[in-house]
Amino acid sequence: MTYSVDPAFEQRLNEVADRITVALDQLIPPASGPEARLMRAMRHGALSKGKRLRPFITIEVGRMFGAQEKSLLRGAAAVECMHAYSLIHDDLPCMDDDDYRRGQPTVHKAFDEATAVLAGDALQALAFEIMVSPETHRDALMRCKLVEKLTLASGARGMVGGQMIDMHPISEGEDPLQVLTRMQRLKTGCLITLAGEVGALLGGAQEQERQAIAGYTNDLGLAFQIVDDLLDVEGDPAELGKAAAKDSDAGKVNFVSILGVDGAKGQVRHLAAQAKEHLASFGTRANSLLHTVDFVLNRRH
Amino acid sequence: MTYSVDPAFEQRLNEVADRITVALDQLIPPASGPEARLMRAMRHGALSKGKRLRPFITIEVGRMFGAQEKSLLRGAAAVECMHAYSLIHDDLPCMDDDDYRRGQPTVHKAFDEATAVLAGDALQALAFEIMVSPETHRDALMRCKLVEKLTLASGARGMVGGQMIDMHPISEGEDPLQVLTRMQRLKTGCLITLAGEVGALLGGAQEQERQAIAGYTNDLGLAFQIVDDLLDVEGDPAELGKAAAKDSDAGKVNFVSILGVDGAKGQVRHLAAQAKEHLASFGTRANSLLHTVDFVLNRRH
Repeated sequence: MTYSVDPAFEQRLNEVADRITVALDQLIPPASGPEARLMRAMRHGALSKGKRLRPFITIEVGRMFGAQEKSLLRGAAAVECMHAYSLIHDDLPCMDDDDYRRGQPTVHKAFDEATAVLAGDALQALAFEIMVSPETHRDALMRCKLVEKLTLASGARGMVGGQMIDMHPISEGEDPLQVLTRMQRLKTGCLITLAGEVGALLGGAQEQERQAIAGYTNDLGLAFQIVDDLLDVEGDPAELGKAAAKDSDAGKVNFVSILGVDGAKGQVRHLAAQAKEHLASFGTRANSLLHTVDFVLNRRH
Repeated sequence: MTYSVDPAFEQRLNEVADRITVALDQLIPPASGPEARLMRAMRHGALSKGKRLRPFITIEVGRMFGAQEKSLLRGAAAVECMHAYSLIHDDLPCMDDDDYRRGQPTVHKAFDEATAVLAGDALQALAFEIMVSPETHRDALMRCKLVEKLTLASGARGMVGGQMIDMHPISEGEDPLQVLTRMQRLKTGCLITLAGEVGALLGGAQEQERQAIAGYTNDLGLAFQIVDDLLDVEGDPAELGKAAAKDSDAGKVNFVSILGVDGAKGQVRHLAAQAKEHLASFGTRANSLLHTVDFVLNRRH
């Protein structure tokens, strides 16, 4: 699979990533007082160099609908806080037991397990704190809607539920592909879909436009996960910034083990085309979101 | 220390505890789908028989100001979800490593560590989901205020920050009593104070009334913690439902080790009198909250 990624797009992606890092640095409380260790751990987990794909989606969708930049940056930062907390907890020894993330020691390696659990807990609370603030949007009803969406995407029937399935994947009598699809949809899909929805809501998008964005993010999220599984089989650990072949070594079921490498690649191409199709009605306004699809397919880490 | 606790008060406390348990049972998603283990663990942690002191405070404060029962029950349930999540995480092997809680195996003992981390994570999200719902209050601005208070009480400068201090209590050059007081205020004080504030906000209390309630809950929360430390030294494990002398065995600094048993008991009496004084202007309307002070002083577990 080779897809060209527009250099101007990559620059835009990096610019947004940098702005998110600056915003999170300001939003995480300063490391002072006897609890300072907690804030240092939150920074370690949230400020390390990531793709920032979710906040990028929030910002690019929001811009397309003319949302205010300040609102978007805060909404995107809230989404990224939620993502950062989930990575810290997923990396714990009792979960995926990962020592490296984004090329750095994971939070429990750089600090300790208790601090990592607490840093994740505090980043979840911070995500809601950012979202509910009048600085994010002047209308309280809008803020309630955003908080509600965030709870649903991240809770027991969202991201956390997905991680639960990932820990105890297949029971006897369950269809592996069906369970895997639900796992992906909850674990990564819900938050990617939320990222788009936050942008659409802040931009005042109409119902039909919001549905188009939801369709796009659904397909993009699933493609993202399948690419992840392909990278787990074919990826270079140095580029990944974490160990490869973790899933296959652990004998875990994933999209590649079920569909095969060629089947998985075909599915990714299909989802990419479908994701782009959802954006057809937006014309060239959606260029950045179209490039995002190519970026997700082309990623090496 | 002997204090008489009114039997009618105890009955009222038990009635509220039962109503909270029923409400949480309805609010936690049903255990279905491949993620059902998560909901079972959430129930194990949140539905076990506890004192339900925090939601009781929310409900009794709210009733005093004439809040709607349904709003109060939901606000109280949100506060209890937040408390239940914190207990699950605090009991983890990497934190206080407790095997029993409320006379039952802790969540990581009954399930496993990963499930316990996730159950706590999902209960935090659920606390916000309950609070932000229009069913809790029709006014969106009120809901935003409640969510904001909940984020502040539970986050890095609240409950989680307090637990961080508890894990790494005293650095060289710090004043033990000052650090311990901050630890208590953040770890348990913030959420007890929030419990009162939620009731006061839902009841439409005036600024001066809210300040009186905040003074009351501040003193009550600190008294609660000192009694906890006294029980750790003098309590009966069978009544506590958990191991006693954990802190003193671990060589941890607490109020008893700093103030001595007599000094700690004197401080509790002083705080109790001060807590009641804050309620003076409410007259007999505050009877239940006055009894709550005696209950906290008199508790054996």
